[in-house]
Amino acid sequence: MLSEFSIRRTVEFSETDMAGIMHFSNFFRWMEACETAFYRAAGLPVISFVPGEVVGWPRVAARCDYRAPLRFGDTAEVRVRVKEIRTRAIVLRFEFRKVVDERVEPGLLAEGEITAVCVTGGDQGGMTAQPIPEEFRAKIGVATTPA
Amino acid sequence: MLSEFSIRRTVEFSETDMAGIMHFSNFFRWMEACETAFYRAAGLPVISFVPGEVVGWPRVAARCDYRAPLRFGDTAEVRVRVKEIRTRAIVLRFEFRKVVDERVEPGLLAEGEITAVCVTGGDQGGMTAQPIPEEFRAKIGVATTPA
Amino acid sequence: MLSEFSIRRTVEFSETDMAGIMHFSNFFRWMEACETAFYRAAGLPVISFVPGEVVGWPRVAARCDYRAPLRFGDTAEVRVRVKEIRTRAIVLRFEFRKVVDERVEPGLLAEGEITAVCVTGGDQGGMTAQPIPEEFRAKIGVATTPA
Amino acid sequence: MLSEFSIRRTVEFSETDMAGIMHFSNFFRWMEACETAFYRAAGLPVISFVPGEVVGWPRVAARCDYRAPLRFGDTAEVRVRVKEIRTRAIVLRFEFRKVVDERVEPGLLAEGEITAVCVTGGDQGGMTAQPIPEEFRAKIGVATTPA
Repeated sequence: MLSEFSIRRTVEFSETDMAGIMHFSNFFRWMEACETAFYRAAGLPVISFVPGEVVGWPRVAARCDYRAPLRFGDTAEVRVRVKEIRTRAIVLRFEFRKVVDERVEPGLLAEGEITAVCVTGGDQGGMTAQPIPEEFRAKIGVATTPA
Repeated sequence: MLSEFSIRRTVEFSETDMAGIMHFSNFFRWMEACETAFYRAAGLPVISFVPGEVVGWPRVAARCDYRAPLRFGDTAEVRVRVKEIRTRAIVLRFEFRKVVDERVEPGLLAEGEITAVCVTGGDQGGMTAQPIPEEFRAKIGVATTPA
Repeated sequence: MLSEFSIRRTVEFSETDMAGIMHFSNFFRWMEACETAFYRAAGLPVISFVPGEVVGWPRVAARCDYRAPLRFGDTAEVRVRVKEIRTRAIVLRFEFRKVVDERVEPGLLAEGEITAVCVTGGDQGGMTAQPIPEEFRAKIGVATTPA
Repeated sequence: MLSEFSIRRTVEFSETDMAGIMHFSNFFRWMEACETAFYRAAGLPVISFVPGEVVGWPRVAARCDYRAPLRFGDTAEVRVRVKEIRTRAIVLRFEFRKVVDERVEPGLLAEGEITAVCVTGGDQGGMTAQPIPEEFRAKIGVATTPA
Protein backbone atom coordinates (compact mmCIF):
# COMPACT_ATOMS: atom_id res chain seq x y z
CA MET A 1 0.00 0.00 0.00
CA LEU A 2 1.43 3.33 -1.12
CA SER A 3 0.72 6.48 0.90
CA GLU A 4 3.44 8.86 -0.18
CA PHE A 5 5.29 9.58 -3.40
CA SER A 6 7.40 12.27 -5.02
CA ILE A 7 8.52 13.54 -8.41
CA ARG A 8 11.21 16.02 -9.44
CA ARG A 9 10.64 18.61 -12.10
CA THR A 10 12.43 21.57 -13.63
CA VAL A 11 10.76 24.91 -14.42
CA GLU A 12 10.39 25.44 -18.17
CA PHE A 13 10.54 28.74 -19.99
CA SER A 14 6.86 28.53 -20.94
CA GLU A 15 5.96 28.14 -17.25
CA THR A 16 7.48 31.49 -16.27
CA ASP A 17 5.71 34.85 -16.43
CA MET A 18 6.98 38.39 -16.94
CA ALA A 19 7.80 38.64 -13.24
CA GLY A 20 10.51 36.06 -13.98
CA ILE A 21 9.03 33.33 -11.80
CA MET A 22 6.82 30.29 -12.34
CA HIS A 23 3.24 31.44 -12.78
CA PHE A 24 1.20 30.57 -9.69
CA SER A 25 -1.35 28.56 -11.69
CA ASN A 26 1.37 26.12 -12.78
CA PHE A 27 1.88 24.84 -9.23
CA PHE A 28 -1.55 23.20 -9.64
CA ARG A 29 -0.41 21.55 -12.90
CA TRP A 30 2.65 20.23 -11.07
CA MET A 31 0.47 18.86 -8.25
CA GLU A 32 -1.65 17.08 -10.84
CA ALA A 33 1.45 15.61 -12.54
CA CYS A 34 2.59 14.31 -9.15
CA GLU A 35 -0.89 12.86 -8.46
CA THR A 36 -0.81 11.03 -11.83
CA ALA A 37 2.64 9.58 -11.16
CA PHE A 38 1.52 8.55 -7.66
CA TYR A 39 -1.54 6.66 -8.94
CA ARG A 40 0.58 4.99 -11.64
CA ALA A 41 3.18 3.94 -9.07
CA ALA A 42 0.35 2.41 -7.04
CA GLY A 43 -0.89 0.52 -10.11
CA LEU A 44 -4.06 2.58 -10.44
CA PRO A 45 -5.50 4.25 -13.54
CA VAL A 46 -5.97 8.01 -13.32
CA ILE A 47 -8.79 8.01 -15.81
CA SER A 48 -10.32 4.93 -17.40
CA PHE A 49 -12.57 4.62 -20.40
CA VAL A 50 -14.71 1.54 -20.03
CA PRO A 51 -17.34 1.28 -22.82
CA GLY A 52 -20.31 3.40 -21.79
CA GLU A 53 -18.64 4.95 -18.75
CA VAL A 54 -15.72 7.15 -17.81
CA VAL A 55 -14.16 7.18 -14.38
CA GLY A 56 -12.29 10.31 -13.42
CA TRP A 57 -11.40 12.53 -10.48
CA PRO A 58 -12.86 16.00 -10.93
CA ARG A 59 -11.62 18.48 -8.38
CA VAL A 60 -13.94 19.96 -5.76
CA ALA A 61 -11.25 22.07 -4.13
CA ALA A 62 -7.67 23.11 -4.70
CA ARG A 63 -5.41 25.45 -2.79
CA CYS A 64 -1.78 26.43 -2.61
CA ASP A 65 0.30 28.52 -0.18
CA TYR A 66 3.39 30.03 -1.78
CA ARG A 67 6.46 30.78 0.37
CA ALA A 68 9.26 31.26 -2.17
CA PRO A 69 9.26 31.57 -5.94
CA LEU A 70 10.53 29.05 -8.47
CA ARG A 71 12.58 30.42 -11.37
CA PHE A 72 13.41 29.16 -14.87
CA GLY A 73 15.69 26.15 -14.57
CA ASP A 74 15.02 25.56 -10.87
CA THR A 75 14.33 21.95 -9.96
CA ALA A 76 11.85 21.09 -7.24
CA GLU A 77 10.60 17.96 -5.55
CA VAL A 78 6.83 17.65 -5.31
CA ARG A 79 5.85 15.21 -2.58
CA VAL A 80 2.29 13.93 -2.24
CA ARG A 81 0.65 12.35 0.78
CA VAL A 82 -2.86 11.00 1.14
CA LYS A 83 -4.30 13.26 3.82
CA GLU A 84 -7.78 11.79 3.94
CA ILE A 85 -9.99 9.27 2.14
CA ARG A 86 -13.72 9.87 2.45
CA THR A 87 -16.51 7.74 0.94
CA ARG A 88 -16.51 9.55 -2.40
CA ALA A 89 -13.57 11.94 -2.12
CA ILE A 90 -9.84 11.95 -1.54
CA VAL A 91 -7.68 14.76 -0.15
CA LEU A 92 -4.09 14.86 -1.37
CA ARG A 93 -1.48 17.12 0.24
CA PHE A 94 1.53 18.35 -1.73
CA GLU A 95 4.82 19.86 -0.60
CA PHE A 96 7.29 21.65 -2.88
CA ARG A 97 10.97 21.77 -1.96
CA LYS A 98 13.92 23.00 -3.99
CA VAL A 99 16.45 20.47 -5.26
CA VAL A 100 20.05 21.72 -5.42
CA ASP A 101 22.86 19.41 -6.54
CA GLU A 102 20.49 16.43 -6.33
CA ARG A 103 19.73 17.23 -2.66
CA VAL A 104 16.27 18.21 -1.44
CA GLU A 105 16.50 21.37 0.66
CA PRO A 106 14.56 21.37 3.96
CA GLY A 107 12.56 24.61 3.49
CA LEU A 108 9.11 24.55 1.93
CA LEU A 109 8.67 26.51 -1.31
CA ALA A 110 4.96 25.85 -1.38
CA GLU A 111 2.37 23.45 -0.05
CA GLY A 112 -1.09 22.73 -1.34
CA GLU A 113 -4.04 20.38 -1.45
CA ILE A 114 -6.34 18.90 -4.03
CA THR A 115 -9.70 17.40 -3.06
CA ALA A 116 -11.09 15.19 -5.80
CA VAL A 117 -14.31 13.23 -6.16
CA CYS A 118 -14.62 9.80 -7.76
CA VAL A 119 -17.10 9.92 -10.65
CA THR A 120 -18.73 7.86 -13.36
CA GLY A 121 -19.39 9.77 -16.53
CA GLY A 122 -22.44 9.38 -18.72
CA ASP A 123 -22.72 9.64 -22.50
CA GLN A 124 -23.81 13.25 -22.48
CA GLY A 125 -20.90 14.49 -20.46
CA GLY A 126 -22.72 14.38 -17.12
CA MET A 127 -20.79 13.06 -14.13
CA THR A 128 -22.07 11.23 -11.02
CA ALA A 129 -20.10 10.89 -7.80
CA GLN A 130 -19.63 7.29 -6.68
CA PRO A 131 -17.98 5.56 -3.70
CA ILE A 132 -14.25 5.13 -4.14
CA PRO A 133 -13.73 1.51 -5.31
CA GLU A 134 -12.34 -1.04 -2.82
CA GLU A 135 -9.43 -1.83 -5.20
CA PHE A 136 -8.41 1.82 -5.03
CA ARG A 137 -8.51 1.88 -1.22
CA ALA A 138 -6.48 -1.33 -1.11
CA LYS A 139 -3.69 0.19 -3.15
CA ILE A 140 -3.26 3.54 -1.47
CA GLY A 141 -3.43 4.57 2.15
CA VAL A 142 -3.40 7.59 4.43
CA ALA A 143 0.14 8.57 5.41
CA THR A 144 0.63 8.17 9.15
CA THR A 145 3.41 10.75 9.25
CA PRO A 146 2.00 14.05 10.52
CA ALA A 147 1.11 16.18 7.47
CA MET B 1 -13.57 54.02 -4.80
CA LEU B 2 -14.14 50.66 -6.45
CA SER B 3 -14.72 47.57 -4.31
CA GLU B 4 -16.35 45.15 -6.72
CA PHE B 5 -16.03 44.36 -10.41
CA SER B 6 -16.84 41.62 -12.90
CA ILE B 7 -15.84 40.28 -16.30
CA ARG B 8 -17.48 37.78 -18.65
CA ARG B 9 -15.52 35.14 -20.45
CA THR B 10 -16.15 32.13 -22.66
CA VAL B 11 -14.33 28.79 -22.31
CA GLU B 12 -11.90 28.20 -25.17
CA PHE B 13 -11.01 24.86 -26.71
CA SER B 14 -7.44 25.07 -25.38
CA GLU B 15 -8.80 25.54 -21.85
CA THR B 16 -10.61 22.19 -21.84
CA ASP B 17 -9.08 18.84 -20.92
CA MET B 18 -9.86 15.29 -22.00
CA ALA B 19 -12.65 15.09 -19.41
CA GLY B 20 -14.43 17.64 -21.62
CA ILE B 21 -14.44 20.42 -19.01
CA MET B 22 -12.31 23.48 -18.26
CA HIS B 23 -9.11 22.35 -16.57
CA PHE B 24 -9.21 23.27 -12.87
CA SER B 25 -5.96 25.26 -13.10
CA ASN B 26 -7.55 27.66 -15.59
CA PHE B 27 -9.98 29.00 -12.98
CA PHE B 28 -6.93 30.65 -11.42
CA ARG B 29 -5.99 32.24 -14.75
CA TRP B 30 -9.55 33.58 -15.02
CA MET B 31 -9.35 35.02 -11.47
CA GLU B 32 -6.13 36.77 -12.43
CA ALA B 33 -7.70 38.18 -15.62
CA CYS B 34 -10.56 39.53 -13.50
CA GLU B 35 -8.09 41.01 -10.98
CA THR B 36 -6.22 42.77 -13.82
CA ALA B 37 -9.44 44.23 -15.26
CA PHE B 38 -10.48 45.33 -11.77
CA TYR B 39 -7.25 47.21 -11.12
CA ARG B 40 -7.44 48.82 -14.56
CA ALA B 41 -11.04 49.90 -13.95
CA ALA B 42 -9.86 51.48 -10.69
CA GLY B 43 -7.09 53.32 -12.55
CA LEU B 44 -4.31 51.27 -10.99
CA PRO B 45 -1.35 49.56 -12.69
CA VAL B 46 -1.12 45.78 -12.18
CA ILE B 47 2.59 45.75 -12.64
CA SER B 48 4.78 48.80 -13.17
CA PHE B 49 8.33 49.05 -14.39
CA VAL B 50 9.90 52.15 -12.95
CA PRO B 51 13.64 52.39 -13.77
CA GLY B 52 15.53 50.29 -11.23
CA GLU B 53 12.44 48.79 -9.61
CA VAL B 54 9.47 46.58 -10.41
CA VAL B 55 6.25 46.65 -8.47
CA GLY B 56 4.14 43.53 -8.64
CA TRP B 57 1.72 41.37 -6.68
CA PRO B 58 3.16 37.89 -6.15
CA ARG B 59 0.66 35.45 -4.72
CA VAL B 60 1.08 34.03 -1.22
CA ALA B 61 -2.07 31.94 -1.36
CA ALA B 62 -4.71 30.88 -3.85
CA ARG B 63 -7.65 28.56 -3.51
CA CYS B 64 -10.76 27.56 -5.42
CA ASP B 65 -13.87 25.50 -4.58
CA TYR B 66 -15.49 23.94 -7.63
CA ARG B 67 -19.24 23.22 -7.60
CA ALA B 68 -20.12 22.68 -11.26
CA PRO B 69 -17.96 22.29 -14.37
CA LEU B 70 -17.56 24.77 -17.21
CA ARG B 71 -17.61 23.32 -20.74
CA PHE B 72 -16.27 24.52 -24.10
CA GLY B 73 -18.31 27.51 -25.22
CA ASP B 74 -19.86 28.19 -21.80
CA THR B 75 -19.79 31.82 -20.73
CA ALA B 76 -19.30 32.74 -17.08
CA GLU B 77 -19.21 35.90 -15.05
CA VAL B 78 -16.24 36.23 -12.71
CA ARG B 79 -16.98 38.73 -9.94
CA VAL B 80 -14.25 40.04 -7.66
CA ARG B 81 -14.61 41.69 -4.27
CA VAL B 82 -11.92 43.07 -1.99
CA LYS B 83 -12.29 40.86 1.06
CA GLU B 84 -9.48 42.36 3.12
CA ILE B 85 -6.62 44.85 2.86
CA ARG B 86 -3.73 44.28 5.23
CA THR B 87 -0.56 46.39 5.53
CA ARG B 88 1.32 44.53 2.81
CA ALA B 89 -1.27 42.12 1.41
CA ILE B 90 -4.66 42.10 -0.22
CA VAL B 91 -7.23 39.30 -0.26
CA LEU B 92 -9.50 39.16 -3.30
CA ARG B 93 -12.57 36.92 -3.42
CA PHE B 94 -13.93 35.64 -6.73
CA GLU B 95 -17.29 34.12 -7.65
CA PHE B 96 -18.02 32.28 -10.90
CA ARG B 97 -21.58 32.16 -12.25
CA LYS B 98 -22.87 30.88 -15.58
CA VAL B 99 -24.20 33.38 -18.10
CA VAL B 100 -27.08 32.10 -20.26
CA ASP B 101 -28.74 34.38 -22.83
CA GLU B 102 -26.89 37.37 -21.36
CA ARG B 103 -28.35 36.65 -17.91
CA VAL B 104 -26.22 35.71 -14.91
CA GLU B 105 -27.61 32.58 -13.25
CA PRO B 106 -27.90 32.65 -9.43
CA GLY B 107 -26.02 29.42 -8.62
CA LEU B 108 -22.29 29.46 -7.94
CA LEU B 109 -20.08 27.45 -10.31
CA ALA B 110 -16.98 28.12 -8.28
CA GLU B 111 -15.61 30.56 -5.75
CA GLY B 112 -12.04 31.28 -4.85
CA GLU B 113 -9.53 33.63 -3.29
CA ILE B 114 -6.16 35.08 -4.13
CA THR B 115 -3.93 36.62 -1.45
CA ALA B 116 -1.22 38.80 -2.97
CA VAL B 117 1.64 40.77 -1.47
CA CYS B 118 2.82 44.16 -2.66
CA VAL B 119 6.50 44.00 -3.66
CA THR B 120 9.39 46.02 -5.00
CA GLY B 121 11.72 44.06 -7.21
CA GLY B 122 15.48 44.45 -7.33
CA ASP B 123 17.83 44.13 -10.29
CA GLN B 124 18.73 40.51 -9.58
CA GLY B 125 15.15 39.29 -9.54
CA GLY B 126 14.78 39.47 -5.76
CA MET B 127 11.51 40.81 -4.37
CA THR B 128 10.81 42.71 -1.14
CA ALA B 129 7.37 43.09 0.43
CA GLN B 130 6.34 46.71 1.02
CA PRO B 131 3.32 48.49 2.50
CA ILE B 132 0.48 48.90 0.01
CA PRO B 133 0.74 52.50 -1.31
CA GLU B 134 -1.81 55.07 -0.10
CA GLU B 135 -2.85 55.80 -3.71
CA PHE B 136 -3.81 52.15 -4.10
CA ARG B 137 -5.89 52.15 -0.89
CA ALA B 138 -7.60 55.35 -1.99
CA LYS B 139 -8.76 53.79 -5.24
CA ILE B 140 -10.09 50.47 -4.05
CA GLY B 141 -12.01 49.50 -0.96
CA VAL B 142 -13.35 46.52 0.95
CA ALA B 143 -16.83 45.54 -0.23
CA THR B 144 -19.33 45.98 2.58
CA THR B 145 -21.69 43.39 1.17
CA PRO B 146 -21.23 40.11 3.03
CA ALA B 147 -18.80 37.92 1.05
CA MET C 1 -21.36 33.39 -46.86
CA LEU C 2 -18.59 34.48 -44.49
CA SER C 3 -14.96 34.43 -45.64
CA GLU C 4 -13.23 36.78 -43.22
CA PHE C 5 -13.60 37.62 -39.55
CA SER C 6 -11.67 39.20 -36.70
CA ILE C 7 -11.48 39.32 -32.92
CA ARG C 8 -9.68 41.62 -30.50
CA ARG C 9 -7.87 40.37 -27.49
CA THR C 10 -5.61 41.68 -24.74
CA VAL C 11 -2.47 39.92 -23.50
CA GLU C 12 -2.93 38.49 -20.01
CA PHE C 13 -0.30 38.17 -17.33
CA SER C 14 -0.37 34.36 -17.54
CA GLU C 15 0.34 34.57 -21.29
CA THR C 16 3.67 36.35 -20.81
CA ASP C 17 7.02 34.69 -20.17
CA MET C 18 10.14 35.82 -18.32
CA ALA C 19 11.30 37.69 -21.43
CA GLY C 20 8.35 39.99 -20.74
CA ILE C 21 6.48 39.17 -23.95
CA MET C 22 3.64 36.85 -24.94
CA HIS C 23 4.97 33.31 -25.17
CA PHE C 24 5.20 32.26 -28.83
CA SER C 25 2.99 29.19 -28.28
CA ASN C 26 0.09 31.43 -27.22
CA PHE C 27 -0.22 32.92 -30.72
CA PHE C 28 -1.57 29.50 -31.73
CA ARG C 29 -4.14 29.60 -28.93
CA TRP C 30 -5.23 33.06 -30.15
CA MET C 31 -5.55 31.76 -33.73
CA GLU C 32 -7.75 28.95 -32.45
CA ALA C 33 -9.92 31.38 -30.48
CA CYS C 34 -10.35 33.44 -33.66
CA GLU C 35 -11.20 30.28 -35.65
CA THR C 36 -13.87 29.35 -33.07
CA ALA C 37 -15.43 32.82 -33.17
CA PHE C 38 -15.35 32.74 -36.99
CA TYR C 39 -17.21 29.42 -37.18
CA ARG C 40 -19.73 30.63 -34.61
CA ALA C 41 -20.32 33.85 -36.56
CA ALA C 42 -20.95 31.68 -39.64
CA GLY C 43 -23.46 29.59 -37.70
CA LEU C 44 -21.26 26.49 -37.65
CA PRO C 45 -20.35 24.24 -34.73
CA VAL C 46 -16.64 23.92 -33.98
CA ILE C 47 -17.02 20.51 -32.45
CA SER C 48 -20.25 18.54 -32.25
CA PHE C 49 -21.12 15.52 -30.17
CA VAL C 50 -23.80 13.56 -31.98
CA PRO C 51 -24.59 10.27 -30.15
CA GLY C 52 -21.97 7.71 -31.25
CA GLU C 53 -19.83 10.17 -33.17
CA VAL C 54 -17.71 13.26 -32.66
CA VAL C 55 -16.94 15.73 -35.41
CA GLY C 56 -13.87 17.86 -34.94
CA TRP C 57 -11.04 19.62 -36.76
CA PRO C 58 -7.68 18.16 -35.75
CA ARG C 59 -4.72 20.13 -37.03
CA VAL C 60 -2.36 18.71 -39.64
CA ALA C 61 -0.18 21.79 -39.81
CA ALA C 62 0.29 25.09 -37.99
CA ARG C 63 2.83 27.83 -38.45
CA CYS C 64 3.48 31.39 -37.34
CA ASP C 65 5.91 34.13 -38.38
CA TYR C 66 6.62 36.64 -35.64
CA ARG C 67 7.60 40.21 -36.55
CA ALA C 68 7.09 42.17 -33.33
CA PRO C 69 6.37 41.06 -29.78
CA LEU C 70 3.14 41.50 -27.84
CA ARG C 71 3.46 42.65 -24.23
CA PHE C 72 1.22 42.40 -21.14
CA GLY C 73 -1.81 44.62 -21.65
CA ASP C 74 -1.30 45.03 -25.41
CA THR C 75 -4.44 44.57 -27.48
CA ALA C 76 -4.28 42.97 -30.92
CA GLU C 77 -6.70 42.22 -33.72
CA VAL C 78 -6.54 38.67 -35.05
CA ARG C 79 -8.05 38.50 -38.54
CA VAL C 80 -8.81 35.16 -40.17
CA ARG C 81 -9.35 34.45 -43.88
CA VAL C 82 -10.19 31.16 -45.55
CA LYS C 83 -7.15 30.61 -47.75
CA GLU C 84 -8.18 27.29 -49.23
CA ILE C 85 -10.86 24.60 -48.92
CA ARG C 86 -9.83 21.13 -50.04
CA THR C 87 -12.00 17.98 -50.04
CA ARG C 88 -11.18 17.05 -46.45
CA ALA C 89 -9.10 19.98 -45.22
CA ILE C 90 -9.31 23.73 -44.72
CA VAL C 91 -6.45 26.23 -44.59
CA LEU C 92 -7.04 29.33 -42.45
CA ARG C 93 -4.72 32.33 -42.56
CA PHE C 94 -4.37 34.66 -39.58
CA GLU C 95 -2.94 38.16 -39.28
CA PHE C 96 -2.12 39.89 -35.99
CA ARG C 97 -2.10 43.69 -35.78
CA LYS C 98 -1.77 45.95 -32.75
CA VAL C 99 -4.80 47.94 -31.63
CA VAL C 100 -4.01 51.35 -30.15
CA ASP C 101 -6.80 53.68 -29.00
CA GLU C 102 -9.37 51.44 -30.69
CA ARG C 103 -7.55 51.77 -34.05
CA VAL C 104 -5.91 48.85 -35.84
CA GLU C 105 -2.33 49.72 -36.80
CA PRO C 106 -1.24 48.83 -40.35
CA GLY C 107 1.93 46.85 -39.55
CA LEU C 108 1.79 43.09 -39.05
CA LEU C 109 2.83 41.75 -35.63
CA ALA C 110 2.56 38.17 -36.78
CA GLU C 111 0.88 36.05 -39.40
CA GLY C 112 0.19 32.34 -39.40
CA GLU C 113 -1.78 29.45 -40.79
CA ILE C 114 -3.68 26.46 -39.47
CA THR C 115 -4.52 23.51 -41.71
CA ALA C 116 -7.25 21.34 -40.22
CA VAL C 117 -8.89 18.12 -41.34
CA CYS C 118 -12.57 17.30 -40.95
CA VAL C 119 -13.00 14.10 -38.92
CA THR C 120 -15.55 11.72 -37.49
CA GLY C 121 -14.54 10.18 -34.21
CA GLY C 122 -15.21 6.62 -33.13
CA ASP C 123 -15.97 5.27 -29.66
CA GLN C 124 -12.39 4.28 -28.92
CA GLY C 125 -10.92 7.66 -29.63
CA GLY C 126 -9.93 6.90 -33.23
CA MET C 127 -10.58 9.61 -35.83
CA THR C 128 -11.36 9.26 -39.56
CA ALA C 129 -11.00 12.07 -42.09
CA GLN C 130 -14.20 12.79 -44.01
CA PRO C 131 -15.20 15.18 -46.80
CA ILE C 132 -16.10 18.63 -45.50
CA PRO C 133 -19.94 18.72 -45.32
CA GLU C 134 -21.83 20.73 -47.97
CA GLU C 135 -23.52 22.82 -45.23
CA PHE C 136 -20.09 23.91 -44.05
CA ARG C 137 -18.99 24.92 -47.56
CA ALA C 138 -22.22 26.83 -48.05
CA LYS C 139 -21.62 28.94 -44.95
CA ILE C 140 -17.99 29.90 -45.41
CA GLY C 141 -16.00 30.78 -48.51
CA VAL C 142 -12.50 31.54 -49.69
CA ALA C 143 -11.67 35.23 -49.35
CA THR C 144 -11.11 36.77 -52.77
CA THR C 145 -8.90 39.51 -51.39
CA PRO C 146 -5.26 38.61 -51.94
CA ALA C 147 -3.95 37.00 -48.78
CA MET D 1 30.48 19.94 -30.57
CA LEU D 2 26.86 18.88 -30.18
CA SER D 3 24.52 18.91 -33.18
CA GLU D 4 21.71 16.60 -32.13
CA PHE D 5 19.93 15.81 -28.91
CA SER D 6 16.72 14.25 -27.62
CA ILE D 7 14.42 14.20 -24.62
CA ARG D 8 11.55 11.91 -23.63
CA ARG D 9 8.34 13.21 -22.21
CA THR D 10 4.91 11.92 -21.20
CA VAL D 11 1.63 13.69 -21.99
CA GLU D 12 0.05 15.18 -18.88
CA PHE D 13 -3.66 15.54 -18.19
CA SER D 14 -3.45 19.34 -18.37
CA GLU D 15 -1.91 19.07 -21.86
CA THR D 16 -4.93 17.27 -23.32
CA ASP D 17 -8.04 18.93 -24.74
CA MET D 18 -11.67 17.81 -24.97
CA ALA D 19 -10.85 15.88 -28.17
CA GLY D 20 -8.83 13.60 -25.89
CA ILE D 21 -5.46 14.39 -27.48
CA MET D 22 -2.56 16.71 -26.70
CA HIS D 23 -3.51 20.25 -27.71
CA PHE D 24 -1.60 21.24 -30.86
CA SER D 25 -0.09 24.32 -29.19
CA ASN D 26 1.68 22.11 -26.64
CA PHE D 27 3.93 20.57 -29.31
CA PHE D 28 5.62 23.98 -29.43
CA ARG D 29 6.14 23.94 -25.66
CA TRP D 30 7.71 20.47 -25.99
CA MET D 31 10.02 21.72 -28.78
CA GLU D 32 11.11 24.56 -26.50
CA ALA D 33 11.76 22.15 -23.61
CA CYS D 34 13.92 20.05 -25.96
CA GLU D 35 15.78 23.17 -27.15
CA THR D 36 16.50 24.16 -23.51
CA ALA D 37 17.83 20.69 -22.66
CA PHE D 38 19.94 20.72 -25.85
CA TYR D 39 21.59 24.05 -25.00
CA ARG D 40 22.19 22.90 -21.43
CA ALA D 41 23.76 19.65 -22.66
CA ALA D 42 26.06 21.76 -24.86
CA GLY D 43 27.04 23.89 -21.86
CA LEU D 44 25.22 26.97 -23.11
CA PRO D 45 22.82 29.26 -21.24
CA VAL D 46 19.33 29.56 -22.75
CA ILE D 47 18.82 33.00 -21.33
CA SER D 48 21.37 34.97 -19.39
CA PHE D 49 20.94 38.02 -17.23
CA VAL D 50 24.17 39.96 -17.22
CA PRO D 51 23.81 43.27 -15.30
CA GLY D 52 22.22 45.78 -17.66
CA GLU D 53 21.53 43.33 -20.46
CA VAL D 54 19.49 40.22 -21.23
CA VAL D 55 20.42 37.72 -23.90
CA GLY D 56 17.61 35.60 -25.23
CA TRP D 57 16.30 33.81 -28.29
CA PRO D 58 12.98 35.28 -29.40
CA ARG D 59 11.28 33.27 -32.12
CA VAL D 60 10.83 34.67 -35.62
CA ALA D 61 9.10 31.57 -36.97
CA ALA D 62 7.68 28.30 -35.70
CA ARG D 63 5.83 25.53 -37.50
CA CYS D 64 4.67 21.99 -36.89
CA ASP D 65 3.24 19.23 -39.10
CA TYR D 66 1.09 16.75 -37.20
CA ARG D 67 0.77 13.15 -38.45
CA ALA D 68 -0.63 11.25 -35.49
CA PRO D 69 -2.06 12.41 -32.16
CA LEU D 70 -0.52 12.02 -28.73
CA ARG D 71 -2.84 10.94 -25.92
CA PHE D 72 -2.75 11.25 -22.11
CA GLY D 73 0.02 9.02 -20.78
CA ASP D 74 1.74 8.54 -24.16
CA THR D 75 5.50 8.99 -24.08
CA ALA D 76 7.32 10.53 -27.03
CA GLU D 77 10.91 11.25 -27.96
CA VAL D 78 11.55 14.78 -29.18
CA ARG D 79 14.77 14.91 -31.21
CA VAL D 80 16.36 18.23 -32.16
CA ARG D 81 18.90 18.89 -34.91
CA VAL D 82 20.58 22.17 -35.84
CA LYS D 83 19.33 22.67 -39.39
CA GLU D 84 21.03 25.98 -40.08
CA ILE D 85 23.06 28.68 -38.32
CA ARG D 86 22.87 32.14 -39.88
CA THR D 87 24.65 35.29 -38.69
CA ARG D 88 21.94 36.28 -36.21
CA ALA D 89 19.54 33.33 -36.34
CA ILE D 90 19.40 29.60 -35.76
CA VAL D 91 16.97 27.08 -37.25
CA LEU D 92 16.23 24.03 -35.13
CA ARG D 93 14.35 21.02 -36.51
CA PHE D 94 12.37 18.73 -34.21
CA GLU D 95 11.02 15.22 -34.73
CA PHE D 96 8.44 13.54 -32.47
CA ARG D 97 8.30 9.74 -32.26
CA LYS D 98 6.30 7.53 -29.91
CA VAL D 99 8.14 5.55 -27.25
CA VAL D 100 6.62 2.15 -26.43
CA ASP D 101 8.26 -0.15 -23.88
CA GLU D 102 11.35 2.09 -23.83
CA ARG D 103 11.75 1.68 -27.62
CA VAL D 104 11.45 4.59 -30.06
CA GLU D 105 9.05 3.68 -32.87
CA PRO D 106 10.18 4.53 -36.42
CA GLY D 107 7.12 6.49 -37.58
CA LEU D 108 6.97 10.26 -37.16
CA LEU D 109 4.19 11.64 -34.96
CA ALA D 110 5.06 15.21 -35.81
CA GLU D 111 7.95 17.31 -37.05
CA GLY D 112 8.52 21.01 -36.70
CA GLU D 113 10.95 23.90 -36.74
CA ILE D 114 11.77 26.91 -34.63
CA THR D 115 13.76 29.83 -36.03
CA ALA D 116 15.14 32.04 -33.27
CA VAL D 117 17.15 35.25 -33.29
CA CYS D 118 19.96 36.08 -30.88
CA VAL D 119 19.18 39.31 -29.00
CA THR D 120 20.47 41.70 -26.39
CA GLY D 121 17.76 43.24 -24.28
CA GLY D 122 17.73 46.82 -23.03
CA ASP D 123 16.39 48.19 -19.76
CA GLN D 124 13.03 49.20 -21.18
CA GLY D 125 12.20 45.80 -22.58
CA GLY D 126 13.44 46.54 -26.11
CA MET D 127 15.43 43.82 -27.88
CA THR D 128 18.19 44.13 -30.49
CA ALA D 129 19.34 41.31 -32.77
CA GLN D 130 23.06 40.57 -32.53
CA PRO D 131 25.47 38.13 -34.23
CA ILE D 132 25.45 34.71 -32.60
CA PRO D 133 28.51 34.64 -30.27
CA GLU D 134 31.56 32.58 -31.33
CA GLU D 135 31.40 30.55 -28.09
CA PHE D 136 27.89 29.49 -29.06
CA ARG D 137 28.97 28.41 -32.57
CA ALA D 138 31.91 26.50 -31.10
CA LYS D 139 29.64 24.43 -28.87
CA ILE D 140 26.92 23.46 -31.31
CA GLY D 141 27.04 22.51 -34.97
CA VAL D 142 24.83 21.73 -37.92
CA ALA D 143 23.93 18.04 -38.10
CA THR D 144 25.37 16.47 -41.23
CA THR D 145 22.78 13.70 -41.28
CA PRO D 146 20.05 14.55 -43.80
CA ALA D 147 17.24 16.26 -41.95
